Amino acid sequence: MSEKGKNWIKAEDVARLAGVSRSAVSRTFTPGASVAEKTRAKVMHAAEQLGYQVNIIARTMNTGSSNFIGIVTAGFDNPFRSKLLTPLVHQLALHGFMPLLMNADDPEQLAPSLKQLLSYHVAGVIITSGAPPLSLAEEYLSRKIPVTLINRHADLKGCDRVASDNAQGMQLMAEYCREQGWHNIGFIGEDRSNFSTSERYNALISSMPDLSVSTRFIAGGGYDAGRAAAIELFTCQVLLCATDMLALGAMDGLRSLNASEKSPAVIGFDDIPQASWAPYQLTTIQQDTDGLAQQAVDLLVTRIAQFDLPSRHRAVPVKLIIRHSA
Amino acid sequence: MSEKGKNWIKAEDVARLAGVSRSAVSRTFTPGASVAEKTRAKVMHAAEQLGYQVNIIARTMNTGSSNFIGIVTAGFDNPFRSKLLTPLVHQLALHGFMPLLMNADDPEQLAPSLKQLLSYHVAGVIITSGAPPLSLAEEYLSRKIPVTLINRHADLKGCDRVASDNAQGMQLMAEYCREQGWHNIGFIGEDRSNFSTSERYNALISSMPDLSVSTRFIAGGGYDAGRAAAIELFTCQVLLCATDMLALGAMDGLRSLNASEKSPAVIGFDDIPQASWAPYQLTTIQQDTDGLAQQAVDLLVTRIAQFDLPSRHRAVPVKLIIRHSA
Repeated sequence: MSEKGKNWIKAEDVARLAGVSRSAVSRTFTPGASVAEKTRAKVMHAAEQLGYQVNIIARTMNTGSSNFIGIVTAGFDNPFRSKLLTPLVHQLALHGFMPLLMNADDPEQLAPSLKQLLSYHVAGVIITSGAPPLSLAEEYLSRKIPVTLINRHADLKGCDRVASDNAQGMQLMAEYCREQGWHNIGFIGEDRSNFSTSERYNALISSMPDLSVSTRFIAGGGYDAGRAAAIELFTCQVLLCATDMLALGAMDGLRSLNASEKSPAVIGFDDIPQASWAPYQLTTIQQDTDGLAQQAVDLLVTRIAQFDLPSRHRAVPVKLIIRHSA
Repeated sequence: MSEKGKNWIKAEDVARLAGVSRSAVSRTFTPGASVAEKTRAKVMHAAEQLGYQVNIIARTMNTGSSNFIGIVTAGFDNPFRSKLLTPLVHQLALHGFMPLLMNADDPEQLAPSLKQLLSYHVAGVIITSGAPPLSLAEEYLSRKIPVTLINRHADLKGCDRVASDNAQGMQLMAEYCREQGWHNIGFIGEDRSNFSTSERYNALISSMPDLSVSTRFIAGGGYDAGRAAAIELFTCQVLLCATDMLALGAMDGLRSLNASEKSPAVIGFDDIPQASWAPYQLTTIQQDTDGLAQQAVDLLVTRIAQFDLPSRHRAVPVKLIIRHSA
């Protein structure tokens, strides 16, 4: 597939130029390893001159563990998941890990994709919301490869998860509705099998036992689904949406009815960039994507260091952002 | 960093169970290698029983070339770049390549990031629009690692590039303006050093030598920049925007003026998902992200096979999508 004879500089070349042993070069580039300051300086100078790079592939072979982390996600074009990807890649880099991205958009490709990750000897796997069922993750756990879930159910033993505090978020929504005197509430969510939808819906019902909630659960969950659902729920005073994409679609659905000022208020969940655009000015529950990424990577890193920990769950606090939609 | 003693199954284990040689296992898992059908069946059966996976790391060590491709991009939360990422990952997978994602959002991190990619012995690098200057790519080319650019300048020898056909796109815009009888044209672009902006602007000027074009070039280039620019150009009949994000901001900027029906028409470039949302219904030039990804990977794969080719450039056709904004 590829030409031989790339101009790769080897540790031996550096050792020769620096006039030190091969092992001195290796120790210089191994975090925490002991090497005399003078030797280190010689090695660094020679490495700089030759343009030497540590060979991570060789290190992986020698130590038996790689610094690859699989990120299994669906829908790169979902604004919330795109927003989460940046801090995830950043947090992994801070710990010296390199993400391998697996697109789980096509459920039929998931099994081969997860198997493919194994061939890279990944040190761990992060599975985000939206990706298909977890049964395949068992294969990782059985090989003692840690799995961390973001905004998903943890139905697997030894699997850590981090999620936005959905209970807190829905309580914030419920309190806001009470303050505004809204009692005729609509809820728009994705399919009930969707983790975030079902957890947010259940939290809403617990927070508002006194109120009637009309609901529409929709397969899918994007902009068009929100649009269709809102048209059916237009007699409510407020529409609480499980995601911002549903909420933005809902707002446009309501506008298409040419209704008067009695059109329902709309509240979303996520705070994607489009939520603050002028035609929407969406009131929403803001997920802390930096916090989610930091906690997810912390859970993964600690379990890579010690696999036999009990399952852990961390909830990341959310915030109510009040704009003009409600 | 990681525990030893993961339960990795080795090729030797498969060979033992299948009652064949180690080399028979290796040949079974090497595309195109010759192996007797009966032997292959034995190997596959044993591999399945043991849960064996090819060790790509070991293969990389043995062959000296990896199947990693670096993707250097900025702004995962830019909808156009997110839209491009899905087919890129898909096309690379079809050729057996695994992408390593490098976020170039922070220009100060670019040099260390590109150096880090070297340590993975990447077989090639794809640099997309938005990522910072290319001077660092020279380090790859000097090591005979192919570099392919998407929607960027190729100021490097031996570097391939693919870009949407900006000349065709601006000609489509110009023709449409002529049909509508618009002669007072505004152009909104990013900083002039931005490749897409400058190429599109120059193509526009060539397509409309007879018309007056007012222009606003803005550092940055997102939604807010478009908003601000449109307010200054509101006396034009139509605003031609170098990206959809600028165009969507422009539409909201114009709306904020509470102007009458004389508000300018707006045309974008990209066709991101938000362009078709109800408040925008943006007329735009659609970039073929599947085509860009396919051509980029084809250029990269052919140059991986043969590094010493002349620089190649491919233009991917675009389409005018007429909606309500113009």
